[in-house]
Amino acid sequence: MFKRILIANRGEIAVRIIRACQELDIETVAVYSDVDAEALHVQLADYAYNIGPADAMKSYLNMDAIIMAAKASKSEAIHPGYGFLSENADFAEKVTKAGLIFIGPSAEIIRQVGNKDAARAAMKAAGLPMTIGSEPIVNNEHACNLAGEIGYPVILKPVSGGGGKSMYVANNQLELISALNKVDVTRSPFYLETYISEARHIEVQIMADTYGNVLHVGERECSIQRRNQKVLEESPSSALTPEMRTTVGAMAIRAAKSIYYTNVGTVEFLLDVKTGKFYFMEINPRIQVEHAVTEMVTGIDLVRRQIRIAAGEPLNKKQEDILFIGHAIECRINAEDPEQCFIPSPGHIDFYHEAGGPRVRVDSGVCAGMTVQPHYDSMVAKVIAHGRTRGDAIKIMRRALAEYRISGIKTNISFQQEILNNPHFCSGNIDTQFVYKRMTPIQEAECEIDSENKKYYSQG
Amino acid sequence: MFKRILIANRGEIAVRIIRACQELDIETVAVYSDVDAEALHVQLADYAYNIGPADAMKSYLNMDAIIMAAKASKSEAIHPGYGFLSENADFAEKVTKAGLIFIGPSAEIIRQVGNKDAARAAMKAAGLPMTIGSEPIVNNEHACNLAGEIGYPVILKPVSGGGGKSMYVANNQLELISALNKVDVTRSPFYLETYISEARHIEVQIMADTYGNVLHVGERECSIQRRNQKVLEESPSSALTPEMRTTVGAMAIRAAKSIYYTNVGTVEFLLDVKTGKFYFMEINPRIQVEHAVTEMVTGIDLVRRQIRIAAGEPLNKKQEDILFIGHAIECRINAEDPEQCFIPSPGHIDFYHEAGGPRVRVDSGVCAGMTVQPHYDSMVAKVIAHGRTRGDAIKIMRRALAEYRISGIKTNISFQQEILNNPHFCSGNIDTQFVYKRMTPIQEAECEIDSENKKYYSQG
Repeated sequence: MFKRILIANRGEIAVRIIRACQELDIETVAVYSDVDAEALHVQLADYAYNIGPADAMKSYLNMDAIIMAAKASKSEAIHPGYGFLSENADFAEKVTKAGLIFIGPSAEIIRQVGNKDAARAAMKAAGLPMTIGSEPIVNNEHACNLAGEIGYPVILKPVSGGGGKSMYVANNQLELISALNKVDVTRSPFYLETYISEARHIEVQIMADTYGNVLHVGERECSIQRRNQKVLEESPSSALTPEMRTTVGAMAIRAAKSIYYTNVGTVEFLLDVKTGKFYFMEINPRIQVEHAVTEMVTGIDLVRRQIRIAAGEPLNKKQEDILFIGHAIECRINAEDPEQCFIPSPGHIDFYHEAGGPRVRVDSGVCAGMTVQPHYDSMVAKVIAHGRTRGDAIKIMRRALAEYRISGIKTNISFQQEILNNPHFCSGNIDTQFVYKRMTPIQEAECEIDSENKKYYSQG
Repeated sequence: MFKRILIANRGEIAVRIIRACQELDIETVAVYSDVDAEALHVQLADYAYNIGPADAMKSYLNMDAIIMAAKASKSEAIHPGYGFLSENADFAEKVTKAGLIFIGPSAEIIRQVGNKDAARAAMKAAGLPMTIGSEPIVNNEHACNLAGEIGYPVILKPVSGGGGKSMYVANNQLELISALNKVDVTRSPFYLETYISEARHIEVQIMADTYGNVLHVGERECSIQRRNQKVLEESPSSALTPEMRTTVGAMAIRAAKSIYYTNVGTVEFLLDVKTGKFYFMEINPRIQVEHAVTEMVTGIDLVRRQIRIAAGEPLNKKQEDILFIGHAIECRINAEDPEQCFIPSPGHIDFYHEAGGPRVRVDSGVCAGMTVQPHYDSMVAKVIAHGRTRGDAIKIMRRALAEYRISGIKTNISFQQEILNNPHFCSGNIDTQFVYKRMTPIQEAECEIDSENKKYYSQG
């Protein structure tokens, strides 16, 4: 096992990794930018190195500075967390070339899953169901054949372009031919894609050691999103039957095995609510923000597992050994103002008291007296509730959020509470459009952030 | 289910009960003394009633004021927590007579288990092994017969008196007769008791509904004590084999059934380290401080269960449905100064940041800006760590205590850390004398609290 690890990140995930290291008797080295000298991850680590100014490009994304700190601190490995350099194949390569261990998959795997075309080609070859009919359409007959393979409804889309322009939904062959008559596939390429009017974001957590063993650790549902950012996640998904769970779990394992994936990772799918079919989206070669819900229902520590796999330990479990108990929900606590179009709300935290008690876990990157920096992601903490059932988890989360106290900055807690009290959410009637369809109307048009504030936006 | 419950307590257990109520959609009524108007339990409850001045005799022990508040607030039931009125049969009776439900066993049961003689007689009748040969000795033959029943070694003790005077340990019949020759059993009564030179405190959590169903929820080990106050508790006990666990669990169920016990409770035993035999000590008819370790390893919420049993719900489980996963340790965080003989350290909390992250639970009664009152128990919070194994739980607890920040008052965190780093503790080599035998010598003689400070001492 490693003696010392450098954590190339900040905020709650850096704290999370430090905790895992401490529990494994591994010393920790934090890195920090000029504005993070007092940050919680710096306070908790055994050693800390300044790696540059506030601008992430010059600090948390500064590969050479981080590798230099790792060498100077005699670290044996680097944990990249999520965001920043975690999916940067060049960084993984540089770390390895410097004689250090990158805690994550190899640079080759990161490169492969990071390239959408390469990833989709590999997953198609592995037999995973894909949303896209991938080939450009040659003529009407070809299009009908493709649509037959994909299954209706389909959507006809131009290969280049977007914004909903020249896109047509077809529920059957007649409608497809009618749509094809409106476009000219010989002038610009068009392709067909499965049309999913109501989709749920389902992702499967996998663990893969360096000896070819791959396990899945159940699914997470991340359909509650705002502007494609996950807001609230849960495990298991209320949409899945045991059969669907087995199916999607097997798919994720097949996906990982087909590319000789190592370390922990996530295979993301879209689930068509109407048909119950899964479609491969992408593979995330890193720990995810929402990993905690999986930890709560399985008792498996995914960050410790990342470190142990990177150190060469084999998985010591079989698939049937992994037990799923209860239901977990995670709410992301962001420093943003839900009444002002979710504009980030950096600033000094005057008072801070976390939710606590039974079945509640808080992973936080802040404490009282700290300043939430405008330079980085606005997520300051995550609250995770573990109930016997989904309904129980919702009630635990409601009481946890009610007792969470943060003053000095605005947070999205009231928005999370609105979700938790929404009857559609409570009955599990959710899809990726939930926030727009089911919540108090959010006037997105009014939510254009002015350029003055744009700089506050997330880079994580 | 109840609509509204009054919580006749303060501090972390009041907060704990409020959380359980909120998760069950029950409204909560707090009571508070003059100095507790800003206390956390008051902040978190739906309603709050002032019941008198700081002196607990005039507030938290003021039965009439509490029952009046319950009636005024239209509460249907009263949860007494632990300490204060929780084991007061008269209070339970008054609550019932006022037309309210007392969340706990009936007044009769509280009375029976509270009377040591009655409890021991009942438990002896139920066939539980007792430490005491209960009858006064008539003559040498009688004494030898009693010793034969109890099993050597025995200790010869005067019925009245104490302080180690006229007490003799006998390892066999010869030594017993020799001891009897030194005393005169015809002048003042003497009795024999099993002599346990090395004992561990093992207690079994039970749950009993009002329909005669009784389950045990495993054991807790509470051998780490200072001046007969539990300091650190764990579940399971590292001393028990699966057979011993079955034995002691069955004994606890038998004990509860024999007295028609209802609601949750604890049957306490002494375990003789040398012989592996259990001896009944007492029954605690209330929730205990250390209940959380049982909750962590079983996933059962004991406080919710108390409420549901009191509301007439039957236990919906069988003994074999109760699964025990991993190992949990609880450290009590007391406002006291380990470097000044554990003198209580009340005062203003300037900064407060709880431990968090995976596998850590904090049940706290305080937050930053609050004043720890000198009038009540010095325990301000409990940290509970849940690991895969005992060793894992120890490591999680070490990292949790290392990140706990409280300033403005002194706490016993450094003392807890000393325990967690003690090699005897880590190897499970503990008994009730651990703190005195295995820790850095505590000069108890120097620890005489002067009368000025005595008033600070625990009443809980």
